[in-house]
Amino acid sequence: MALTKQPYKGTRDFFPSLERQRQFIFKQMRKTAELFGYEPYDGPLLEEVELYKAKSGEELINEQIYSFTDRGNRFVAIRPEMTPTLARMIAQIHRETTKPIRFYAIPNLMRYEKPQKGRLREHWQFNVDIFGAPKRQGEFEILQVAVALMENFGADNTMFEILINDRSIVEIIFKKIMKLDNDITYKLYKVIDKSKKVNKEALTEMVDKLNLSSNNKSIFYEYLSLKSFSEASKLLNKHGEELASDFSDFLNLVENSNLKNYLTYDPAIVRGLDYYTGIVFEIFDKHPENRRAICGGGSYADLLKIFDEPSVPGVGFGLGDVTLTDFLTTHKLMKNFDIPSNDLLLTIQDDRALLSSINLAEKLRDKQLKVVNHYETIKFNKVFPLAEKKGVNFVAFIGENELNNKTVQLKNMKDKTQHTLPLDNIDEIIKVINGNSNRS
Amino acid sequence: MALTKQPYKGTRDFFPSLERQRQFIFKQMRKTAELFGYEPYDGPLLEEVELYKAKSGEELINEQIYSFTDRGNRFVAIRPEMTPTLARMIAQIHRETTKPIRFYAIPNLMRYEKPQKGRLREHWQFNVDIFGAPKRQGEFEILQVAVALMENFGADNTMFEILINDRSIVEIIFKKIMKLDNDITYKLYKVIDKSKKVNKEALTEMVDKLNLSSNNKSIFYEYLSLKSFSEASKLLNKHGEELASDFSDFLNLVENSNLKNYLTYDPAIVRGLDYYTGIVFEIFDKHPENRRAICGGGSYADLLKIFDEPSVPGVGFGLGDVTLTDFLTTHKLMKNFDIPSNDLLLTIQDDRALLSSINLAEKLRDKQLKVVNHYETIKFNKVFPLAEKKGVNFVAFIGENELNNKTVQLKNMKDKTQHTLPLDNIDEIIKVINGNSNRS
Repeated sequence: MALTKQPYKGTRDFFPSLERQRQFIFKQMRKTAELFGYEPYDGPLLEEVELYKAKSGEELINEQIYSFTDRGNRFVAIRPEMTPTLARMIAQIHRETTKPIRFYAIPNLMRYEKPQKGRLREHWQFNVDIFGAPKRQGEFEILQVAVALMENFGADNTMFEILINDRSIVEIIFKKIMKLDNDITYKLYKVIDKSKKVNKEALTEMVDKLNLSSNNKSIFYEYLSLKSFSEASKLLNKHGEELASDFSDFLNLVENSNLKNYLTYDPAIVRGLDYYTGIVFEIFDKHPENRRAICGGGSYADLLKIFDEPSVPGVGFGLGDVTLTDFLTTHKLMKNFDIPSNDLLLTIQDDRALLSSINLAEKLRDKQLKVVNHYETIKFNKVFPLAEKKGVNFVAFIGENELNNKTVQLKNMKDKTQHTLPLDNIDEIIKVINGNSNRS
Repeated sequence: MALTKQPYKGTRDFFPSLERQRQFIFKQMRKTAELFGYEPYDGPLLEEVELYKAKSGEELINEQIYSFTDRGNRFVAIRPEMTPTLARMIAQIHRETTKPIRFYAIPNLMRYEKPQKGRLREHWQFNVDIFGAPKRQGEFEILQVAVALMENFGADNTMFEILINDRSIVEIIFKKIMKLDNDITYKLYKVIDKSKKVNKEALTEMVDKLNLSSNNKSIFYEYLSLKSFSEASKLLNKHGEELASDFSDFLNLVENSNLKNYLTYDPAIVRGLDYYTGIVFEIFDKHPENRRAICGGGSYADLLKIFDEPSVPGVGFGLGDVTLTDFLTTHKLMKNFDIPSNDLLLTIQDDRALLSSINLAEKLRDKQLKVVNHYETIKFNKVFPLAEKKGVNFVAFIGENELNNKTVQLKNMKDKTQHTLPLDNIDEIIKVINGNSNRS
């Protein structure tokens, strides 16, 4: 039986048009991170499963991870996320590295998922993290990077928003106002995580199970209905509390920057359990047909604990290529990459011209021109459709006449002008191709 | 017990200096391939094991592959090489794609190896392939790409050579002159593969096991002692045979190009068994301390057979980042990437300047300057060591004086000139940083 030609379930074959598109996305990511002084890193494809367990607990591991035992009896996994690898690397260097440490990467990651729109088994994720910065400035900068990336693609605040919350607000409400213990707090985080995905009845049912006092229950629902930081502040004030002073500093930075056009307070964003310690956020597509998160991140403190290292505060986000591509496509921000970009298609109309055409190509490439050699003789009228597919501005012909005269004929694909030049006049040929000649 | 901070055996953590080095290598690879009109592609990290078995047979699979059964009961492997994926992709598109098809990729690959110099479990491999070109021109072009890459790094023929053979020569000797059957031919290929790695006694022992006639044995040793294509040609002539005519075409192309400075005939290069059909080659480091292959490739015909597709001839090579990096380091061709490259380090000497410095950074980044914000107040004399680590040309200071006067002080790290400019005169600040100002 013949083998299948299709890629493994939930993964993609990147043919050139798709691969060029992806390289364009990666380039924007690198450029954006480097505008803020972030430095590139990468880590291994495989890590020991213990590392993921230590960070995320058993639950996530068992469901979604690609794990197996290697021939040396190590229980390893294909990385499902980059943060544990990053933590391991920061643990190696944080003592002797000047803070803040700014790192970014674009690793390929795998999760065992049911493939669907926006979710594949293999994806690439832009990871940006800052360690050891003053907390609120670090948070502010990380949000700036996320917004700058989106803006670099041409996106604006009609297209996306950043839904944001701060764990300090939730902590004050749960611990100081509602006076809940850790166990109930943990369960309420889970309820919040699910609150936007379920209907009102299901939410009520989940909350009722927790046996909150009727007073606490109404505070909790009031919390879930908050629409802005100022409403959150008022709720705290009503109960004799106020926003953490450093969080007010954060809001002040936001108010005086471009970020204010993008941030929307959302009490339903808490992003899991013990991990985050400050802001938590998601970039959300505003398009009615693509209402989904493109990116998630936040502030954390204790990532290095699992290596017995002291706490180094960090802030970061992960942004996947699949959801980003969906976003860019939905908003018509994605250029077309079907056609490559080359300088010259070099053709021959006489077998004996082969060597001349090869030598010419060699010389032009030495001058950094992208030259596509077509080795088989090809008729004039068949050259132009080929030239279009190759995305060239110029076509060169060497036929019997040109061979006899030691010339090459160049044709400009745009304005259709022709130039007959001596084969050995490389400088003039390059001038014509680069559009710097006034000969015709 | 604390988790290990070390990466999984045989893999690397790419901290920024190493990652910048790697990105530089990748950039050269992309640039070189695109000078020849090659288009980028990529495929999935996982493929079904059947695909590798169909191409390479059971033996290679069982020893070196990272394979496991997924939750859907598929027997899959982390890609150990790119060619099977490429073949699968070409099988999808070759019918409707204009030939030649020129593709390149830089995938991460994993093999279960004993880590040693030049061999790691995870590496990145530059794969370049051309399909459907006239055979000898395709071979010639692929060699040109390999040489161009090496030359783009500054390497020349004192540093590396290309050891090359052609399967047509071996076939004529084994089949037409020695008249061997397929079974013995297959075994002799294996002996040749090992011939350079063993001493003379071991070689004799391997050959003796095959029970060749004494005449064939002496032809075989004569073959193994060949030093050039002309010697090979003479050996054939002596037995009434000659080089395949198309192979002479290939040699003619080589003689008229830059390639002639690099190619060395080597009868011991056959590169495995059934796979290759024309030239086979390896780029070999000439440095006495690093005598090893950096790259291997050749001409093949029947890759698509496993998909029940007609034969499309191809030529290609794979070049790994680990051996290439060793080569470049050995020959001192690798630049130092320890320090990043940024435009400006923006510091404050007064807490109240935070917002001003953040706003200034935002405006400069809008103009594509790479700006590193330092958020904590920092004394003048501590700024300069930090500026060196950040690889900036300029440092900006905003202290009490500057705040009062709404200015910023810029210091050129090279010539130590200073410039005090109005904070809101972004154009002038950019001019100074870009070195276009005559103010001082």
